[in-house]
Amino acid sequence: MPVSSKHRARLERCASISDLRELARRRLPRPLFDFVDGGAGAEVTLRENEAAFARLRLLPRYPVDVSRRTTRTTILGYNASMPLILAPVGFAGLLFPDGEAGAARAAANAEIPFCLSTNSLASVEEIGTHAESGERWFQLYFLKDRAWMQALVQRAAASGFRVLCVTIDLPVAGRRARDIRNGFALPLRPTLKTALHFATRLDWLRGVAGQRLRIGNFEGLAKSSNFTGVAELVASLFDPSATWDDLAQLRVAWRGPLVVKGVMHPKDAERAIEIGADAVAVSNHGGRQLEDAPATMDVLSDVATAVNGRIPVFVDGGVRRGVDVLKAIALGATACLIGRAFAWGLAAAGEQGVARALSILAAETDTALALLGVTSTAELSEQHLWRGAAS
Amino acid sequence: MPVSSKHRARLERCASISDLRELARRRLPRPLFDFVDGGAGAEVTLRENEAAFARLRLLPRYPVDVSRRTTRTTILGYNASMPLILAPVGFAGLLFPDGEAGAARAAANAEIPFCLSTNSLASVEEIGTHAESGERWFQLYFLKDRAWMQALVQRAAASGFRVLCVTIDLPVAGRRARDIRNGFALPLRPTLKTALHFATRLDWLRGVAGQRLRIGNFEGLAKSSNFTGVAELVASLFDPSATWDDLAQLRVAWRGPLVVKGVMHPKDAERAIEIGADAVAVSNHGGRQLEDAPATMDVLSDVATAVNGRIPVFVDGGVRRGVDVLKAIALGATACLIGRAFAWGLAAAGEQGVARALSILAAETDTALALLGVTSTAELSEQHLWRGAAS
Amino acid sequence: MPVSSKHRARLERCASISDLRELARRRLPRPLFDFVDGGAGAEVTLRENEAAFARLRLLPRYPVDVSRRTTRTTILGYNASMPLILAPVGFAGLLFPDGEAGAARAAANAEIPFCLSTNSLASVEEIGTHAESGERWFQLYFLKDRAWMQALVQRAAASGFRVLCVTIDLPVAGRRARDIRNGFALPLRPTLKTALHFATRLDWLRGVAGQRLRIGNFEGLAKSSNFTGVAELVASLFDPSATWDDLAQLRVAWRGPLVVKGVMHPKDAERAIEIGADAVAVSNHGGRQLEDAPATMDVLSDVATAVNGRIPVFVDGGVRRGVDVLKAIALGATACLIGRAFAWGLAAAGEQGVARALSILAAETDTALALLGVTSTAELSEQHLWRGAAS
Amino acid sequence: MPVSSKHRARLERCASISDLRELARRRLPRPLFDFVDGGAGAEVTLRENEAAFARLRLLPRYPVDVSRRTTRTTILGYNASMPLILAPVGFAGLLFPDGEAGAARAAANAEIPFCLSTNSLASVEEIGTHAESGERWFQLYFLKDRAWMQALVQRAAASGFRVLCVTIDLPVAGRRARDIRNGFALPLRPTLKTALHFATRLDWLRGVAGQRLRIGNFEGLAKSSNFTGVAELVASLFDPSATWDDLAQLRVAWRGPLVVKGVMHPKDAERAIEIGADAVAVSNHGGRQLEDAPATMDVLSDVATAVNGRIPVFVDGGVRRGVDVLKAIALGATACLIGRAFAWGLAAAGEQGVARALSILAAETDTALALLGVTSTAELSEQHLWRGAAS
Repeated sequence: MPVSSKHRARLERCASISDLRELARRRLPRPLFDFVDGGAGAEVTLRENEAAFARLRLLPRYPVDVSRRTTRTTILGYNASMPLILAPVGFAGLLFPDGEAGAARAAANAEIPFCLSTNSLASVEEIGTHAESGERWFQLYFLKDRAWMQALVQRAAASGFRVLCVTIDLPVAGRRARDIRNGFALPLRPTLKTALHFATRLDWLRGVAGQRLRIGNFEGLAKSSNFTGVAELVASLFDPSATWDDLAQLRVAWRGPLVVKGVMHPKDAERAIEIGADAVAVSNHGGRQLEDAPATMDVLSDVATAVNGRIPVFVDGGVRRGVDVLKAIALGATACLIGRAFAWGLAAAGEQGVARALSILAAETDTALALLGVTSTAELSEQHLWRGAAS
Repeated sequence: MPVSSKHRARLERCASISDLRELARRRLPRPLFDFVDGGAGAEVTLRENEAAFARLRLLPRYPVDVSRRTTRTTILGYNASMPLILAPVGFAGLLFPDGEAGAARAAANAEIPFCLSTNSLASVEEIGTHAESGERWFQLYFLKDRAWMQALVQRAAASGFRVLCVTIDLPVAGRRARDIRNGFALPLRPTLKTALHFATRLDWLRGVAGQRLRIGNFEGLAKSSNFTGVAELVASLFDPSATWDDLAQLRVAWRGPLVVKGVMHPKDAERAIEIGADAVAVSNHGGRQLEDAPATMDVLSDVATAVNGRIPVFVDGGVRRGVDVLKAIALGATACLIGRAFAWGLAAAGEQGVARALSILAAETDTALALLGVTSTAELSEQHLWRGAAS
Repeated sequence: MPVSSKHRARLERCASISDLRELARRRLPRPLFDFVDGGAGAEVTLRENEAAFARLRLLPRYPVDVSRRTTRTTILGYNASMPLILAPVGFAGLLFPDGEAGAARAAANAEIPFCLSTNSLASVEEIGTHAESGERWFQLYFLKDRAWMQALVQRAAASGFRVLCVTIDLPVAGRRARDIRNGFALPLRPTLKTALHFATRLDWLRGVAGQRLRIGNFEGLAKSSNFTGVAELVASLFDPSATWDDLAQLRVAWRGPLVVKGVMHPKDAERAIEIGADAVAVSNHGGRQLEDAPATMDVLSDVATAVNGRIPVFVDGGVRRGVDVLKAIALGATACLIGRAFAWGLAAAGEQGVARALSILAAETDTALALLGVTSTAELSEQHLWRGAAS
Repeated sequence: MPVSSKHRARLERCASISDLRELARRRLPRPLFDFVDGGAGAEVTLRENEAAFARLRLLPRYPVDVSRRTTRTTILGYNASMPLILAPVGFAGLLFPDGEAGAARAAANAEIPFCLSTNSLASVEEIGTHAESGERWFQLYFLKDRAWMQALVQRAAASGFRVLCVTIDLPVAGRRARDIRNGFALPLRPTLKTALHFATRLDWLRGVAGQRLRIGNFEGLAKSSNFTGVAELVASLFDPSATWDDLAQLRVAWRGPLVVKGVMHPKDAERAIEIGADAVAVSNHGGRQLEDAPATMDVLSDVATAVNGRIPVFVDGGVRRGVDVLKAIALGATACLIGRAFAWGLAAAGEQGVARALSILAAETDTALALLGVTSTAELSEQHLWRGAAS
């Protein structure tokens, strides 16, 4: 689906990820925008994720020769152009036609990993055929149907996904107030009350009219086709009884790198290492699961201390700017996962919107490196974070 | 009084207690809404009660088998479905026809205690005949007329109220700015200036037109029928000279469990134990009495430390969400009393509105338990509260 | 000047001092309201004065016999009904016809001291003949014309003023941004641009049309009649070279109690004691002098510690509510001076407005005492201030 | 260019620098106003610069003889009327015709140093011929073309610039979101979309229509004439590879006083002393370079401690009021550089606007001195900063 030149000009004028969010807000039907944008309960954690980044200060050194600098980083063996990973975003295909494929292509072009959500419209096989040159990760939820789950993991491996990312923070679905208020359900259909609003979203309507609304990875699975809401889907298919033993079994079954995503407690990071995880991702699911969980940046340091360099630590939640990426690394992270940051771009303009999001973040990260007086992210440490006159 | 299907749909769309508050705001005449919603003075404590909950963070553990979890708790020997008690709310019958009875039924159906206020439109006898299967508590103020007070206590016992809850923080009425500005007085009548507003509250007007405006428990008591405002009622009937000796006498007179409500100072909690109380309720009367009192959640920990497990500690003030309930328990409470949280539901849609409030809180509490990685409230402790990197 | 019954009803509906402020805002021409309401520079200190009170929490005890309680206090030997003093307010006569006399009568009726400003429209002789039974204080600025100053002090004594209150924080006038923006000058006259606004202030215009605009205490003093702005008046008449020696001389010249007003530093409080002052008033001139000075409540404790009970400590700045008065006393003050709190009442409805302000504060103070579980202000101490879980 | 009497009256009504900002906002085309007003990224540092000043409290002493007081200070040997320096502001000539010359004259008249930016419309020769009696500084960026840079330094010396101020915090241009959104580019031309807005900026349009848009100091330099944006200019001409060695060479080449501007880290201040700098300026480039850098006032104390009086420390960023100047000095600064504070005045009314900005700051600084109980800035120390009850 081509993007008009007018739209392209708008993309160029986006100075920041928050500008892309505004474009997404104008293009998506409100219930869908709220689904992407919102969080659990009163959205305290959602706001805190961003606020925790904003509270930190970066203390620069000048003059330093920063003429030869790079944002390149190795992420689980992959040589990435910058310390970013496209996080698994459920139903990304709803945001733009062929959304998952577009995002995967944009990631591949930008040379960063793309992580496909279990809850994607496109299946592992479909994304596996796209974006051939890219680094593909697959995100997995614990499923009640363990046989299907094991098969899905095998399908992902067979489709070229190199890294498995297991999300542990979704035993049940978080209560997202906006979704309840909007009566968010799939497929998304205008009601009498919202018809006028949908009429201003023609661009989106045209885009999705021709595509199937389904979860590719569950095609053929009993009970998978008759859910209408996310909570319903989770309750019927996902397994709230999973434990570290289940993770340990997955560890054995999966030969590639395995990331445990959703770690908030230092002790859970240690457990992850014990079962043989190759990395942990500090995450509160973007403030969408447990209400009033701490900001990820507020617990990152404790987790990184517990991990003590044995495996890489990733972090997500509130990453919107290049300086956020540098702060996360200064506190011990190897890379950041970005969810909404690319989803807003995807909703705004498909693959080109994701590309724009990544080019903004690349430029911001590069500029921030130079202005911090640093030539690579490897030099970053807590000394770059200013902590008041007492430090 | 039946609730229309349109109204029922609105209730279903309520994602949170704050949504029910909005429905209440639209249905009640402003002076009555303000009476329920407002607090003393500049309402600092009113806001702080909610803010103190919002400041606390919950640190989750994953993955934990939470497939078999329960919110059930024993409250003074009663097997409750969740750690909630409907707090005494004065004049609840003004909010909806047969308001106290409706709330009592909703509590009984939800299997949590209902506490009737002294200042109810319905008398202890009327509520005693309703809601037979429910757990009934009676809230008592110190009355100048001690003979009437003693008789009222006996009437409550005879009507099946099992627990006596004595409120100690109302020697005089707090100065509630909204009520003074509104000239709030009973019976509530439109003035020339407010006639138009009342005309938009037909639903409420129709509901209360047929019911008597009175305080059931004071029927027959001299001076009880000619007050028009709350402060006037308190000044004429309530006793500002009561001391711990009076509580000690009540303790002897009442054979069932006795709760002392309005404790803010750890030393008062100790006194309550000394006179033989079965529980204390940390309360600042929902921010309606002493201006600038601390938030209840800010003093709960000190009170719980002083009590040291000898008797249960309850807490109210600002409880609006399931995570609030878990936080209170993590800090040492056994259960929370909710006042406005159910009153807004009652005002919105009577018994069904209270039921909706309780179903929201039940779902939120259950979800929060699961997402915290806990299978019962008994497992909660201060370790689930995150207190910054230093912890 | 009589107040209409409609206006009287409005006064009755005022629940707080802030409501009186709103009435004042509607009755006064904007430049005059801003003169009373505003502060120096960006008004940080003005806001902080109120915020510092709001930050403190009062921890109550229940049940306590508070049936016999009193707010009465001795202020420099005067048996006051409550711990309040009407602070010196310059140009109070501009707010309402015979404003100083009206305020003095209201203070006398309420049995609290009234302090006349040097910069009053009425002279010491005029106020001395009014309000015979009341407690009168006279506020003095250091004047360049020392002979006039000494004579003024004698005139005050001869007119029955019992206490001299010397303001030390006005060597030069603070820069009050609102006054500069408004081009505030006396006499206040509508301009082409403000004519429409003044037309909505007929009540005020009618009231002041018949009165002379002048400073009574400077009548006959050379240069005193041709100033148009406050800063100009200060620069031409007030003395920026005054030191503690001048205060010491005043101390010798004045036989009655002497209060040093404007103390912010503990060492200045000690100097005041050394020269024989009978009291100090912690004051930042209501946030009207030094920009970004600390809130008075933030330094009160340090000053009170330095004074260590040798003389009474008063405080002003941000006192708007009964709980503010109790907090000040709990931190070591004997009484509070109120400026804007009564000036807004005066501007709203003259003497009756001041009376309303005082009745609001009396009721709030009395209610707060009862709800704190205290029967007199003498019982108040820092233990009534809650300082977080660590206390 | 003469300023109308109406405009002069408006200038007189400006009570503060923020009022001048408002005049500037009304006179400048939005993209140009935003260029001056805005900062990097989400503008956290921009806001923090001002907020850090507002957080500090000044504790006054009274009564003190302040009748003979002065704000005069020696700045690198120059006897200045007050501790202020007009900071280098790029493209100041765009704000008002002959902007740099007007600002230089206003500075000379006010007896404070004027620092010309490398990026000025006027060249060093043009400003050198103006403002003969004034103290002139020249600000230098590291240029890729070292020959041109060395020649420029010689031209500045030959034109009478006495002090060289080397900016070290611009290895690359900061990403300023407003500029990107506005598509800010030079020359500034209305688009179809902004034509209406530009039509309301006739005063500005008339003023700049007759002047050349160019950078005087780069005239004749290859590549210097075909840039359209600031980031482009920086990328093509400025040198990101400069180090302390380059500064050391400049130190040798320049015989007059040398200031290193852009120091944020105490260790960089020490390096500056080692290479022989005569002063350092604590600066984050007004929040325009590194996003989320600390406020300058938050690091000033650490830098001043490291410098330990060996050389003067200047500071800029957020200086808007006289009390800000005193606070900076109390924390160890010798003088403040002001950028936006004078640029807004320049944009509002040219030289007269700068003069108004300086007269406001002079009056505010003088008043604050008097009200702090201090007769010269030399007396200021950390003891004048109040730091809470613990101090």
